Amino acid sequence: MNETHRIRPDPGDERLTVTYAGRDQAGGAVELATIVERPLELRLNGHDVVTLMTIGAQPDLLAVGYLFNHNLLRRGDAIEEIALDEAGGRIEVRIERAIDWSAGPRDPDGALGGAAGTAFGALIADLERAELEGSAVVRAPWVFQLQNAINATPSLYQKAGALHACVLCEEDEPLVYVEELGRHGAMDMIAGHMVLNGIDGADKMLYTTGRLTHGMVIKAVKMGVPVLLTRSGFSSWGVELARKAGLTMIGRIRGQRFVVISGEERVRD
Amino acid sequence: MNETHRIRPDPGDERLTVTYAGRDQAGGAVELATIVERPLELRLNGHDVVTLMTIGAQPDLLAVGYLFNHNLLRRGDAIEEIALDEAGGRIEVRIERAIDWSAGPRDPDGALGGAAGTAFGALIADLERAELEGSAVVRAPWVFQLQNAINATPSLYQKAGALHACVLCEEDEPLVYVEELGRHGAMDMIAGHMVLNGIDGADKMLYTTGRLTHGMVIKAVKMGVPVLLTRSGFSSWGVELARKAGLTMIGRIRGQRFVVISGEERVRD
Repeated sequence: MNETHRIRPDPGDERLTVTYAGRDQAGGAVELATIVERPLELRLNGHDVVTLMTIGAQPDLLAVGYLFNHNLLRRGDAIEEIALDEAGGRIEVRIERAIDWSAGPRDPDGALGGAAGTAFGALIADLERAELEGSAVVRAPWVFQLQNAINATPSLYQKAGALHACVLCEEDEPLVYVEELGRHGAMDMIAGHMVLNGIDGADKMLYTTGRLTHGMVIKAVKMGVPVLLTRSGFSSWGVELARKAGLTMIGRIRGQRFVVISGEERVRD
Repeated sequence: MNETHRIRPDPGDERLTVTYAGRDQAGGAVELATIVERPLELRLNGHDVVTLMTIGAQPDLLAVGYLFNHNLLRRGDAIEEIALDEAGGRIEVRIERAIDWSAGPRDPDGALGGAAGTAFGALIADLERAELEGSAVVRAPWVFQLQNAINATPSLYQKAGALHACVLCEEDEPLVYVEELGRHGAMDMIAGHMVLNGIDGADKMLYTTGRLTHGMVIKAVKMGVPVLLTRSGFSSWGVELARKAGLTMIGRIRGQRFVVISGEERVRD
């Protein structure tokens, strides 16, 4: 991967934190750096899609990744414009393809949060049709090296807490490291980066600080990344979907230990 | 509070976890208890409201609390029936009052996730009108005693991880301790318990394992609880809304330390 495609958190970016005066347990004055939370209205071809809560680090990645992960943007769509109105809290994506909104999801934000409705049904169908690349492998030492490298990278989390990270990795190397308010937003940002830079997921891994629920599994499969790593754990539905899709999931990464709960055929010593 | 109103997690409840066979980092066989994630369709007076993802521990509390926190159920509404179809993944709440759906939020689930739209506007207006009880206090030793008591209570989190907790507390005592997949669901369950048992929040505190974002602040104010405690941190919008509403927020609770970021007038040594 080209060096220009690499991303690291920028804890020095003053737009992303606010410092408040507070008190400690003994009443002493303290200053606390707090992560910014701001609304971002996302529009596609002039149509309101959703209002996302975001720290605002890279709204273009968040917007494109959200649209891709919710089936509103397809691989190969020509993106004509991404117009950010930062003061107005609005981002507009324009693509060449005309979208038939009548056939699309009525509530794209609910699509991954709910089991009912056609949008979710379509995502599950996608998952069952998915063919994840079979030749990818993951070696146990890479997992520990990635965890160490990610923990050692200066981040907004270290400065202000209350954030999730998602990192696109190749072998033992973290390539694209983003942070957001929620685990889904961070994963959407990685999807946006992959779409905008034409990055193939077949030889990559996704590391997340969040729980691996059904929604995270559906996104990884959609992004074509065959290996999901988390320091956290799994939900039952996440495990069942991952096994169905042939996705490798490794979690509970602590020190020199982890658990492989699906797709163990990709894991080597 | 009556003893019958107390709730503790039940890690022995076999409906709430699934044990999967997995591998450890060296390829050895391991068994991993994983939290159940299942969809629950919520209906109010015959109208589809939302599909929630839940562990399914107490769907009645989740349903009633969700409806209350999203302004669909009001304090004092007569609840005629709560009908759970566990196999069908559906819960139906019936109240006496006829609901004018044309005036209500089109997408109640989006209401707390987005800044746009009338539903969110109404919640912010509620917050600005809110008068949190001014006489409540919180003493620093209670915070540490609560954190220790909560950490020492057997929980699903200890067994299966990947969960958030919310605990309704009075002075140094955890009264109602619930767990859910997400921080919002856990808080909604507490709201459901308060509504169903007519519990007043003015002399209570809410402890959460999650981040205190704008949505968590809006819910605490709606529930009439003047003190929010978290082991995690804050977002900027959460801090700004809490200060506006006169809500006390204490976070970053670790060992014998914490930070008070708003409403410090309620905190005593």
